[in-house]
Amino acid sequence: MEVENRGEKKIVVAVDESEESMHALSWCLNNVISVSHQNSNSTTLVLLYVKPPPPANYSAFDVAGYLFGNDVVADLEDYYRKLVDSVMSKAQQVCMKSKINIKVEKKVGSGDAKDVICGTVEKLGADMLVMGSHGYGFLKRAILGSVSYDCAKQVKCPMVVVKHPKNIS
Amino acid sequence: MEVENRGEKKIVVAVDESEESMHALSWCLNNVISVSHQNSNSTTLVLLYVKPPPPANYSAFDVAGYLFGNDVVADLEDYYRKLVDSVMSKAQQVCMKSKINIKVEKKVGSGDAKDVICGTVEKLGADMLVMGSHGYGFLKRAILGSVSYDCAKQVKCPMVVVKHPKNIS
Repeated sequence: MEVENRGEKKIVVAVDESEESMHALSWCLNNVISVSHQNSNSTTLVLLYVKPPPPANYSAFDVAGYLFGNDVVADLEDYYRKLVDSVMSKAQQVCMKSKINIKVEKKVGSGDAKDVICGTVEKLGADMLVMGSHGYGFLKRAILGSVSYDCAKQVKCPMVVVKHPKNIS
Repeated sequence: MEVENRGEKKIVVAVDESEESMHALSWCLNNVISVSHQNSNSTTLVLLYVKPPPPANYSAFDVAGYLFGNDVVADLEDYYRKLVDSVMSKAQQVCMKSKINIKVEKKVGSGDAKDVICGTVEKLGADMLVMGSHGYGFLKRAILGSVSYDCAKQVKCPMVVVKHPKNIS
């Protein structure tokens, strides 16, 4: 699965609501894609956002032991729809700002971030995975810690871990 | 420390005696450096090999409780000198095979692989660190497990983890 052995390159950038993931996207555009700009027709940038699975799949009961009402589920779905739109539109802006004419595909998955990211990379036969070091998302980050190192262990293609200057200790 | 904001790029590739580290070097040459070939005068590839610290620093006693004799220390030093030569010459061949005209610097450090790699990257103000996923070296690998994930956590610049197809499970 060498990039140089194929006509077409697929680069997956896992984006979330963090500034770091936008920094990783920007780094990728400026350091991996811009330098092969002349071949950019053969490169597809896949922006991947992973939503958590629907709450009903987590647990049908809230902390008080009651089933989630349909209105709560609908509110959450609405919240994630808006979040996805906002992240993808921010990512699109980063791409436009780079002034690199590149094919961009948007994908939205749902489930465990590591499983969805690694599964998508494998399914696409991607040549590279790029993500921030502290993703995935503020909730996941708080609950599960960093997803990027788990992905680095599992994913088969080369993976770039990019840190936001803010996250450099 | 953005690559695009500086005239000169420094890319550190941590090499060891594993095939995987040569694969990582080759990947870097073909996917990061080759595409910016026209600017390769401003890019320096730093090949970094880390030897373990001298055995006297580990422990002055061998398993039987005797001090290492000077001959044993000399033999080990000789062994590592040959190993470094062999790894660096293999790395040089990989560079030559890529037919990319790039400035190559060789550095040999001694000590804990993670500390030396991260320290060198910081000292050089490197723009990127590239290494295999299973390094560092067959001894360290067996004793300490993977160094690359520790480096990914510590290093400030973007880091690429490249897997050898053999190590893909």
